[in-house]
Amino acid sequence: MTNAAFLGLGAIGRPMARRLAEAHPGLVVWNRTRATADAFAQEASVRVASTPADAARGAQVVVTCFATSRDVEAVVDMEHGLAEGLDEGAVVVDCTSGDPATSRRIAERLGARGVAFLDAPVSGGVAGAVSGTLTVMCGGDAATVERVRPLLQAFAGKIVHCGEVGAGDALKAINNALLAVHLLSTAEGLAALVRAGVRAEVALDVINASSGRSNASMNLFPQRVLTREFPRTFRLALLDKDVGIAAGVAREQRVPAPLMQLAADLMTAARAELGEEADHVEAVKMVERWARTEIR
Amino acid sequence: MTNAAFLGLGAIGRPMARRLAEAHPGLVVWNRTRATADAFAQEASVRVASTPADAARGAQVVVTCFATSRDVEAVVDMEHGLAEGLDEGAVVVDCTSGDPATSRRIAERLGARGVAFLDAPVSGGVAGAVSGTLTVMCGGDAATVERVRPLLQAFAGKIVHCGEVGAGDALKAINNALLAVHLLSTAEGLAALVRAGVRAEVALDVINASSGRSNASMNLFPQRVLTREFPRTFRLALLDKDVGIAAGVAREQRVPAPLMQLAADLMTAARAELGEEADHVEAVKMVERWARTEIR
Amino acid sequence: MTNAAFLGLGAIGRPMARRLAEAHPGLVVWNRTRATADAFAQEASVRVASTPADAARGAQVVVTCFATSRDVEAVVDMEHGLAEGLDEGAVVVDCTSGDPATSRRIAERLGARGVAFLDAPVSGGVAGAVSGTLTVMCGGDAATVERVRPLLQAFAGKIVHCGEVGAGDALKAINNALLAVHLLSTAEGLAALVRAGVRAEVALDVINASSGRSNASMNLFPQRVLTREFPRTFRLALLDKDVGIAAGVAREQRVPAPLMQLAADLMTAARAELGEEADHVEAVKMVERWARTEIR
Amino acid sequence: MTNAAFLGLGAIGRPMARRLAEAHPGLVVWNRTRATADAFAQEASVRVASTPADAARGAQVVVTCFATSRDVEAVVDMEHGLAEGLDEGAVVVDCTSGDPATSRRIAERLGARGVAFLDAPVSGGVAGAVSGTLTVMCGGDAATVERVRPLLQAFAGKIVHCGEVGAGDALKAINNALLAVHLLSTAEGLAALVRAGVRAEVALDVINASSGRSNASMNLFPQRVLTREFPRTFRLALLDKDVGIAAGVAREQRVPAPLMQLAADLMTAARAELGEEADHVEAVKMVERWARTEIR
Repeated sequence: MTNAAFLGLGAIGRPMARRLAEAHPGLVVWNRTRATADAFAQEASVRVASTPADAARGAQVVVTCFATSRDVEAVVDMEHGLAEGLDEGAVVVDCTSGDPATSRRIAERLGARGVAFLDAPVSGGVAGAVSGTLTVMCGGDAATVERVRPLLQAFAGKIVHCGEVGAGDALKAINNALLAVHLLSTAEGLAALVRAGVRAEVALDVINASSGRSNASMNLFPQRVLTREFPRTFRLALLDKDVGIAAGVAREQRVPAPLMQLAADLMTAARAELGEEADHVEAVKMVERWARTEIR
Repeated sequence: MTNAAFLGLGAIGRPMARRLAEAHPGLVVWNRTRATADAFAQEASVRVASTPADAARGAQVVVTCFATSRDVEAVVDMEHGLAEGLDEGAVVVDCTSGDPATSRRIAERLGARGVAFLDAPVSGGVAGAVSGTLTVMCGGDAATVERVRPLLQAFAGKIVHCGEVGAGDALKAINNALLAVHLLSTAEGLAALVRAGVRAEVALDVINASSGRSNASMNLFPQRVLTREFPRTFRLALLDKDVGIAAGVAREQRVPAPLMQLAADLMTAARAELGEEADHVEAVKMVERWARTEIR
Repeated sequence: MTNAAFLGLGAIGRPMARRLAEAHPGLVVWNRTRATADAFAQEASVRVASTPADAARGAQVVVTCFATSRDVEAVVDMEHGLAEGLDEGAVVVDCTSGDPATSRRIAERLGARGVAFLDAPVSGGVAGAVSGTLTVMCGGDAATVERVRPLLQAFAGKIVHCGEVGAGDALKAINNALLAVHLLSTAEGLAALVRAGVRAEVALDVINASSGRSNASMNLFPQRVLTREFPRTFRLALLDKDVGIAAGVAREQRVPAPLMQLAADLMTAARAELGEEADHVEAVKMVERWARTEIR
Repeated sequence: MTNAAFLGLGAIGRPMARRLAEAHPGLVVWNRTRATADAFAQEASVRVASTPADAARGAQVVVTCFATSRDVEAVVDMEHGLAEGLDEGAVVVDCTSGDPATSRRIAERLGARGVAFLDAPVSGGVAGAVSGTLTVMCGGDAATVERVRPLLQAFAGKIVHCGEVGAGDALKAINNALLAVHLLSTAEGLAALVRAGVRAEVALDVINASSGRSNASMNLFPQRVLTREFPRTFRLALLDKDVGIAAGVAREQRVPAPLMQLAADLMTAARAELGEEADHVEAVKMVERWARTEIR
């Protein structure tokens, strides 16, 4: 039996931890806001730790899931942080949508204490976490991925080894950057068509049977934009962070990526206009305002 | 029985005309290069006309399919051109991937002679033409679309009325602009990942199970880029023309469309670098050269 | 003595016409809103014509100055329009910041009646018109430019023959597109510096002694942005129109111009955000809002 | 008398060191390639140190001038590096066009040893170094700037305190990013005009009397592009680095800067196309190739 801990009970962390708790009785959890962890313990058979160090003690695998790599770094380094409690030989699996540079820094610090680190961001959203069908993109040592694979299968449908530490972060960020590019460019195209007298529904019907289709045109626009529902499933502020990471990866690798860079700036502008709580799909509203029209 | 004519036996025109000839015996064809029409008449039961006017005489429906709207305009206005031969009450269905402004001009000119005009570009490529499953996007009068629908069904799986004259052109162009955006942005992302140590195949495997997927990532990259096959199915020069039309529609409508405009310029740059005969997917090679890497 | 007429007494047209009237007694003027022309006639020795045709009759040179080439075209073609009154052998000098395609169309129409046409947009603003130091960029026949040169010298310090009809429009539009690029990019840079703790005044002091300086950094930012005065001298809506024309020239010539195209879309976005009456320098405020900071 | 050392005798470092040596007899120099330092000692009255530590020992002020901040960091940390030799109370003035993050890291490391650090990039080029009229942009403590001001006046015409450590780097990078934006956008505009039939000389004559002028249009194009001379004064590879730093500053500050980001990618593309030895003005040649024309 693997002793495991889970740190970070946010929107997606909670259902992941719940599946993990079901598969691995004895899971220990920690959350910055203690009340969230206590509430979670009412629903799942887990022990609530008082500090990251407390959670880490005795664990063979510690899964972390926060908003940014900087948050993870803080949890590692804080007083009674992860670094204090981790046993030599343990593995930290960081499911944060992080940035490669910080992940490499964390990996180095933990490595010096004999602890392995994987950056392991997930895709599939809250629904994928609930159903245990997340895709996990792992960066780090291949053997370490194999070691934690059985445990991750509690919430993952697909576990992919992408490369060295940071590779998972890079891939997740670039996937999300493509989402941002598709979302914004489809909004641009539909806004122009609507102003030219073509109904958005007709346009999407044709595009989705043609070469211009994407996940954005097939799912997000019909379900969220044309209905004007814009449900809050993934914050624009987090997508902005991810596209910024992707743009940083391209720059670090000296790869000109003008469309991704432009999408990164448009997302930051949309975040400034729409605020921290807006859903990512609401970025479409900035394009609509510029176009003085509604996509419908 | 509808008397019909087909003008423009290019790569996609030929299989369209063949299906039309099968469904409508007595089809008359014309092609600028006569030899192409004669060769076609060996395979299909058609009559070869000596001029556009000759082809148009007595036809209730004339289908045209050229590289640009300017070509169509020339065929209408030339000596012994379409305008000379068309009967009052006839319909011209222009399957060219055209531009709205020129289509409106042609429609006005033909309208003055009592001839209806539909801009009716198609998507689905040569394969769709061969199998009769093209999507046809019609701009013009709704009743006219209904009148020609039975005839178009010879090669179309889906016939959509998009709006007034020019609406079909606009929608086709914007679909293709999205294709261009997806193609180039996916190339940017994959090039950055490859340089960061992630194999393109692994990256695509994850992206295609995630939110960043598009027709480009699901079909073009696995089948054409990773295999380094780059088959010539649709010329970059033609895609460049289409993205330019889409960019023009956005400008005409005063809709800021920064990603589409940038993709338009990148495609024109790629065309300058790769030449008139390159396939559209080869635009990826410009990104690869900038990144000093190959996507694989 | 040249018989001359001046049509279009807008913000810049008025001081141009006044200088012309001083140099050429007997000037005839026309303005769409008659009251403006009547008021002008109180201050300058001119005759107010009742229609463009009336103004044109007997004139050897007709100077026009409107917001767009479409306005000029309307004044040519309307009932009792210019075309009706112009004598064979007359010259129309159009000082509108126009677009080359419309100018070519007007030139062709007038040419058929034996009337020469020059597109002749001016730079130097209201101040340059008042002091008679405008730069005039002429497109059309070189001999025609020489013929009207003495007359134009009433308001021009520099008269340049740029090329065929449309060349003046193209050059004016591209000059203004560069202004837009410089204005926006300097705003981007200064906003980033201000957030990084560098005062805008210090930054401009250094930039204006270095390689990054431009007319925008040397004049507009110190005098209009840092003072928060944003005087209304040239409407953002008109600059947006000009940058759009420049972007269209690049597209028509198949010249990738990604920075100019992007500036065109940013200006259109700024116009949607800031309204039709905003001054062009106020585009800086959109960048400030995105940056959540003020440049000072 | 201030004891001073100068490290980094590159293209611009050499004339700076020479002026310093004239004003401060006893200057000690060090260069990675020893032969360059020895050759320099033939022309100037200096002592050549065998290591950075050797150079630093006893110096009150050490001026460094390398290609990148990473180079400076290496010289600080290497065996017998700067850190080993610096006395408590000394000041390091780094004239490298560096990046703020690395400068802050170096400042922190030196600060721990009681050594002050200023990032102090210069503008004015080799000519400005020779004539002693460089502009120096200092980031760090204001009192420290005053302490070294008399010494820097040996090569500087203007010494500006910009803000905290990193502020000098940020300002230098953004100045150079504006240069890159102006260079590329002016190339775009002129290429479009040349294709539209306007001679580049005529266009520049008008632009330089109008609102679209910049240092690029007033100096670089007339002297270097129209003459086809493209002298090698400042490597494209270094400008690419600087624009990348500026783009990074904007991202770090969460300031959307779409024009600067695009210019950064275009410069990286130009560097890939034109190579490490090309001059920065040669970036114009990429635009010319895309436009299939020469600017003249």
